[in-house]
Amino acid sequence: MPHSASYGPTLPTSQAISALRPLPAHAVRLSADGLLGGWQDRNAAATLPHCIGQLHVRGNLDNFRRVTGDFDGGFAGYWFADTDVYKTLEAALWELARSGGSSAFVTDTAQLLEKAQDSDGYLNSYFQVDHRDRQWAELPSSHEMYNAGHLIQAAVAAARTAQHEPAAQQILAVARRFADLLIERFGPDGVDALDGHPEIETALVELYRVTGHRPYLDLAARFVELRGHGLLGPDNRFRQHHYYQDHRPVRDAAEVTGHVVRQVYLAAGAVDVAVETGDTALLSATERLWESAMSAKTYVTGGQGSRHRDEAFGDPYELPADRAYAETCAAIGSFHWAWRLLLATGRSRYADEMERLLYNGIAASTALHGTAFFYSNPLQVRTGHEADEDAPGQRLPWYSCACCPPNLARLMASLHTYTATGGPDGLQLHLYAPGTVTAGEHTVDVTTAYPWNENVTITVTETTEAPWTLTLRLPAWCTDVQLTLNGSQVDVTARHEGYFDLTRTWRPGDRVELVLPMPPRLVTAHHRVDAVRGSVALTRGPLVYCLEQADLADDLADVVFEDLELDTRSPIDVVHGAHAIAPVTLRTPVRVRSGSDDRLYRTFETTTPSATAPAAIPAVPYFLWANRSAGAMRVWIPFPPQER
Amino acid sequence: MPHSASYGPTLPTSQAISALRPLPAHAVRLSADGLLGGWQDRNAAATLPHCIGQLHVRGNLDNFRRVTGDFDGGFAGYWFADTDVYKTLEAALWELARSGGSSAFVTDTAQLLEKAQDSDGYLNSYFQVDHRDRQWAELPSSHEMYNAGHLIQAAVAAARTAQHEPAAQQILAVARRFADLLIERFGPDGVDALDGHPEIETALVELYRVTGHRPYLDLAARFVELRGHGLLGPDNRFRQHHYYQDHRPVRDAAEVTGHVVRQVYLAAGAVDVAVETGDTALLSATERLWESAMSAKTYVTGGQGSRHRDEAFGDPYELPADRAYAETCAAIGSFHWAWRLLLATGRSRYADEMERLLYNGIAASTALHGTAFFYSNPLQVRTGHEADEDAPGQRLPWYSCACCPPNLARLMASLHTYTATGGPDGLQLHLYAPGTVTAGEHTVDVTTAYPWNENVTITVTETTEAPWTLTLRLPAWCTDVQLTLNGSQVDVTARHEGYFDLTRTWRPGDRVELVLPMPPRLVTAHHRVDAVRGSVALTRGPLVYCLEQADLADDLADVVFEDLELDTRSPIDVVHGAHAIAPVTLRTPVRVRSGSDDRLYRTFETTTPSATAPAAIPAVPYFLWANRSAGAMRVWIPFPPQER
Repeated sequence: MPHSASYGPTLPTSQAISALRPLPAHAVRLSADGLLGGWQDRNAAATLPHCIGQLHVRGNLDNFRRVTGDFDGGFAGYWFADTDVYKTLEAALWELARSGGSSAFVTDTAQLLEKAQDSDGYLNSYFQVDHRDRQWAELPSSHEMYNAGHLIQAAVAAARTAQHEPAAQQILAVARRFADLLIERFGPDGVDALDGHPEIETALVELYRVTGHRPYLDLAARFVELRGHGLLGPDNRFRQHHYYQDHRPVRDAAEVTGHVVRQVYLAAGAVDVAVETGDTALLSATERLWESAMSAKTYVTGGQGSRHRDEAFGDPYELPADRAYAETCAAIGSFHWAWRLLLATGRSRYADEMERLLYNGIAASTALHGTAFFYSNPLQVRTGHEADEDAPGQRLPWYSCACCPPNLARLMASLHTYTATGGPDGLQLHLYAPGTVTAGEHTVDVTTAYPWNENVTITVTETTEAPWTLTLRLPAWCTDVQLTLNGSQVDVTARHEGYFDLTRTWRPGDRVELVLPMPPRLVTAHHRVDAVRGSVALTRGPLVYCLEQADLADDLADVVFEDLELDTRSPIDVVHGAHAIAPVTLRTPVRVRSGSDDRLYRTFETTTPSATAPAAIPAVPYFLWANRSAGAMRVWIPFPPQER
Repeated sequence: MPHSASYGPTLPTSQAISALRPLPAHAVRLSADGLLGGWQDRNAAATLPHCIGQLHVRGNLDNFRRVTGDFDGGFAGYWFADTDVYKTLEAALWELARSGGSSAFVTDTAQLLEKAQDSDGYLNSYFQVDHRDRQWAELPSSHEMYNAGHLIQAAVAAARTAQHEPAAQQILAVARRFADLLIERFGPDGVDALDGHPEIETALVELYRVTGHRPYLDLAARFVELRGHGLLGPDNRFRQHHYYQDHRPVRDAAEVTGHVVRQVYLAAGAVDVAVETGDTALLSATERLWESAMSAKTYVTGGQGSRHRDEAFGDPYELPADRAYAETCAAIGSFHWAWRLLLATGRSRYADEMERLLYNGIAASTALHGTAFFYSNPLQVRTGHEADEDAPGQRLPWYSCACCPPNLARLMASLHTYTATGGPDGLQLHLYAPGTVTAGEHTVDVTTAYPWNENVTITVTETTEAPWTLTLRLPAWCTDVQLTLNGSQVDVTARHEGYFDLTRTWRPGDRVELVLPMPPRLVTAHHRVDAVRGSVALTRGPLVYCLEQADLADDLADVVFEDLELDTRSPIDVVHGAHAIAPVTLRTPVRVRSGSDDRLYRTFETTTPSATAPAAIPAVPYFLWANRSAGAMRVWIPFPPQER
């Protein structure tokens, strides 16, 4: 384990294409009074223990005990239920490194996995007991390598956080045995085959990074190259090649397609392969794919997945607010993908997207108390919503397919590692949150109430005599950044890729004040987005806002935005601390449509809409919706009636 | 078989609640030069033979031969594949009665079914061979009584069209044996159970109607009453009670929910039960349910089903154009439901809905040549549409779940029986089509090019000396009906339930001229329909129109309607015979949006849309779309840009 001890997820080797370098995990400390640090503490105190408890209650751990002969009940849950254990294990490992605590779950699980593993390295509690005959026989749907991928990622966390602990060594050994089996079966001397659900690609590259064992990287590269040649689909569930991203090779694909989580996991793995193999064409292809998602297949919250059916992207500009699938795991996967592209290229658009996801598409999934979750994250819910199992009107403690909660847990436990990068020559701040960041021998203290407040203060607390560069991301949503250094205005015109560099010989106490003015903004979608035509979304800084029925006497379905002449009238007030659940609300002027004509369709001439007098109602950050009561919500607010 | 020989589907007994009486099947002859009669002939010449051929090719008939030991291959298709045989058989029987031809398919199938039936009456080729152990064990999903229902409906067709033929007697005997088994198992002395997919209810009532055997009616009533008490769902596919319409008793349900085909089939069966048992409360409940569908859950084409997932209704006002499921079978079921309510109540709104469905939601499913079909009928398809198996961008010859084509065949073969009602005292015309209609001793000749042309001429050709009433439906879409009798203007103000009565002593040669002016109209949706906000649909008479990429050089996604000041400028021209595939097209003035800002989201202030000069492009009837080439299509056309 030469390179990566004490780091977080994703650590390119020194040979990799890499514009930015991750910092060691302990180099960033997020303060609990900031939103991000608060989320990390909530995760440690609530979400992670909740996940561990659910693994016990739901039978995921007993599934392994069936393999070892220590439990004689039936198999519980989906055939890929092992991944919930692996993701929780990974989360627990990151969290132990971040904040300490009991390692009992890690120790017990490590022993259980070692005991359950077959002598040849195979490990899958579904196939090992009841379905030996189907082992390796149904790769498009079996998730066997997807399972293996999450096992490996837990092992990578073990290696990076606790390499000298016996439990960590046990987990890494189990994962390596399984990975070695994969090389034997599916490597250059094995069969050409693919798992229907990517994850193994990025996991194998990370395993290569912690072990230095090149065949892991080669197998990941082989899986990326094999995709796009029709090994997967169409199948008896009518899934076409594009559902599996197997219609075109990754390096030739023009746009993101099919099952969203599979697409973004695959793309993240392709970036990992590209940077480690120096494959600039493949790296460009992943940037092109990302651009295709951003230009026509992503919600204003960063969420992705327009179709419940197949949990899929859908057509360009197909972005319904009500039937947004926007799976939590898709947002997490998209975050991972963007992070890898940020490291590779140093372009701020990827950090902008990470920020959008974090404060909207990802954050919305978790209840304030941290133990209930959305699986899908629609941008509109109507009164009396007829719920699917995975699209309820309020957050649920768990799901039969519980991929999202442990995925959130592992992201949150490692969140600090995504906020900054750097090395001896500089320190790059990507996500603004109160805390401290150290790069090399230089440390800064960050004070801010971001994203509620526009001010970010960065104070140098430790530094050498040599000059170094403090790099600040200037978010694309901010049009008039102001910056002072020790009270003097700094011209921020000269930027590179959305970043601004301050290079100097720093002294302790040097103080940088970044102001990111965040007036409320009305956002409109491309004219091809049919689903939200004639509507605007309300944003402030990186936050998307929404209206909730809880703030209304009338039905939210009848609310229209009062007036679009914002630039002259500025009718939206920013209210700090006025709302019980949201630190900053916006007072939004609306009217309520009324009228007795309830016909579903009518000739245009006879339309005579009327509306009440304008009134101001609170808009709350989207990520905080449904924390008071289940009820209607909408992000996109219709224009005033335009009909005669 | 006392009452119903020589009638079509749905013949209430003389004791039933019934405002209108069906005419014998031979009393209506639709002319082949009209649209409806032309469809009937196309069905006989193309669709029905195509369905029979597919049953051979796809293995549906061999499935029965597996039961009889005459075929030793595997089971083919879905577990409810028998229904395709039954529906095709029903279609063949209606068609034999209408136009004659070979009865070989009927004779062979009757023998096959009789031979395959178990001695106790059970018949289901899926469960009889491979799954005996699961027989009756999985009613929520097994479709066993759904299968039985379609067998019974074929038997009803046999009894009504060929009661003296041995094959018809054979089919009826098979169906009765199965129905008797159902009574034994699920009747008052049996278990409380329901099939997850309704159909058996309406079938049993019809079987009662042809046999006079009351227990069939009682079992149907029992099934209707049992629903709503949680016998079905939630299940391991996460289907809730409401998916199965089992969340509330039919007579208490406030709105249509869940799987659309199941809902409308159940509702049709409930009407049948209500009218035969004199249950006015149940009848009112079905009217209330119908109203809930019409007021918030039905497309402008009459299609229903807003979600691919679960093939379901969704929330009120959730009516996406692109992801409209609008299954062909749902439209057919809705047509059947409306027909039953029309017979029971005599209210024209039900006939209006039948007309809307027929010319739009149903007709669109079938290609001009009659041998390719849509399973789902979206109101918008984008360029490069990423297709689901059952939502392709063009019609397919068959589907793995092929419920729709044979369902179309049986509707089209009996279509003439839905166009008029009557008896000795009068004749009611509901759907206008060229042909002849006889009620009692009175015959009229109808001449019209409807729906292409507004004129309908009705000439009395046979009559008695006694006065009788000619009743004409005045469609709700028509605001200025004109009527003349032998050249003299008739005041049509005095209507009842949307109908106008002409009562007199008629003479041969008496001539009624009905004019239903059909200027192009722009239709807008209720302001709660988010999916089509800021858009209009173009209609003319009963037809909904659409724009197709085939008529455009620019991308359809960028087209906006030129101007909404229709009443003063009337810019839409009606063009007869100008289009290769559509007898009447509309010349629609549009602009094409342009501009280099392709960002998916942007602040409202910076929006500077621009558009080309207006141009006129053809709009074609929705039901004729995709007959030239697969490509983009849309019913709802955006308004001109409103942003600054």
